[in-house]
Amino acid sequence: MKRRVFFVSDGTGITAETIGNAILTQFSNVEFDTFRLPFVDTVEQAHKAVARIADRGASGAGRPVVISSVVDAQVREVLAGVDAFVLDVFAPFIAPLEDELGTQRSPRVGQAHGLVDYDQYEARINATNYALSHDDGIDLTYDDADVILVGVSRSGKTPTCLYLALHYGIKAANYPLIQEDLERQELPRRLLPHRKRLFGLTIDPARLAQVRETRRPGSQYARLEQCRWEVAAAEKLLRAERLPVVSTTHSSIEEIASKILNTLGIDRHMF
Amino acid sequence: MKRRVFFVSDGTGITAETIGNAILTQFSNVEFDTFRLPFVDTVEQAHKAVARIADRGASGAGRPVVISSVVDAQVREVLAGVDAFVLDVFAPFIAPLEDELGTQRSPRVGQAHGLVDYDQYEARINATNYALSHDDGIDLTYDDADVILVGVSRSGKTPTCLYLALHYGIKAANYPLIQEDLERQELPRRLLPHRKRLFGLTIDPARLAQVRETRRPGSQYARLEQCRWEVAAAEKLLRAERLPVVSTTHSSIEEIASKILNTLGIDRHMF
Repeated sequence: MKRRVFFVSDGTGITAETIGNAILTQFSNVEFDTFRLPFVDTVEQAHKAVARIADRGASGAGRPVVISSVVDAQVREVLAGVDAFVLDVFAPFIAPLEDELGTQRSPRVGQAHGLVDYDQYEARINATNYALSHDDGIDLTYDDADVILVGVSRSGKTPTCLYLALHYGIKAANYPLIQEDLERQELPRRLLPHRKRLFGLTIDPARLAQVRETRRPGSQYARLEQCRWEVAAAEKLLRAERLPVVSTTHSSIEEIASKILNTLGIDRHMF
Repeated sequence: MKRRVFFVSDGTGITAETIGNAILTQFSNVEFDTFRLPFVDTVEQAHKAVARIADRGASGAGRPVVISSVVDAQVREVLAGVDAFVLDVFAPFIAPLEDELGTQRSPRVGQAHGLVDYDQYEARINATNYALSHDDGIDLTYDDADVILVGVSRSGKTPTCLYLALHYGIKAANYPLIQEDLERQELPRRLLPHRKRLFGLTIDPARLAQVRETRRPGSQYARLEQCRWEVAAAEKLLRAERLPVVSTTHSSIEEIASKILNTLGIDRHMF
């Protein structure tokens, strides 16, 4: 039986779930079952949440753990009555920060992931559209790109571009290295003016073969020999061009995105 | 002058930035400048971080604020020497949880957003590919879809689908309501078997006109009259079909995604 954990929030629940998961990761020796209870922003919703926690929590190991980012005082009062071990995500930080900043907090409920303004929203949407229209495009210019990812087909360029767009409003294009580039050991000329924004992705050949096999079973494209040759040639080229490179084999999309921003010195704020 | 805040992490920095931003949101009366310092995972990196905080922090209002999710003891020791107000993201929660769980923590450095296993990674990538291949597709089947978003062109379907895919590994397709659907006030037949997975998106007509104008300046498609007619007809149709609907006008992508999951009762874990 696993210990049951409930992320309770008066907003999207993203803050509670992010910090909650990070805290639980510190206990790699315990097994958890996690549940998300977002938009608990009225007394009525709070009573429902308490009932759900009692109901579902009963079948877990030990009493349920509640990780809460609820700000509203009335909702918190109801939640305090739950038969569970409750951790409040904000409580430990507010008083010390009030002291340090010399001001009382003036909270906004559920606003951490709410819409701030149209400009920010637009930046994300425009960047997403940019990523979609500059995905594996052979005949495009890259003048507007903040970042251009370079790598062989299926090395992880597209999801990384979309993640950079959605989370940082970054215009990320990508260029797939083709047979011709690999044979000539040269980057296509139109990439050269953007050298400072180029970033290489690589991947373990066996993993690449596996990914391509799912995509096009039994193809030459998915053969291990082909993948080995492409990856070796791509890594040689990227090294010769002295481009920063990260391997996507053992990294999450978040790690890859974070490394790219850090290496290229882009300090955009997360949404 | 704004108060300077540094999110310091031995991993991607996503946990520190998420909880940090949420805490800062509680002080809506103070202005902050935030900086991300990820991958501070060696003593050498820690010394560099301390120097950067001293350097950049000096030009802000008051002493810098450091919000740290660093786990490694040696790195923390170096960071403790920084001339700043330091909040440790994990510290307040670990001892109470150790008591509650009856076990010592066994931390994994920087693992909160690290790659856990191939299956999870694959789920995200597959879902992203699914969203890309089922975007605004008129002639597709939706048998594999977890969610199908329905709304007029540019109501926010694509970014929401991509977000659901990248963050929850959810296969999200979308169906753009076309003139014919709106005139007939009927959903296309092939959507009907998937009724329980349909979710409507709507948007304020003036906002829609603005978004479309950026996309196709001066077009009939972007005219306010056209947008008003389409949105009214779409809302009428979605209401008649009793589909859940959310407006994307004043919501962030995170809120929209969270509402969809909550309404359709999908309890997937975030990546």
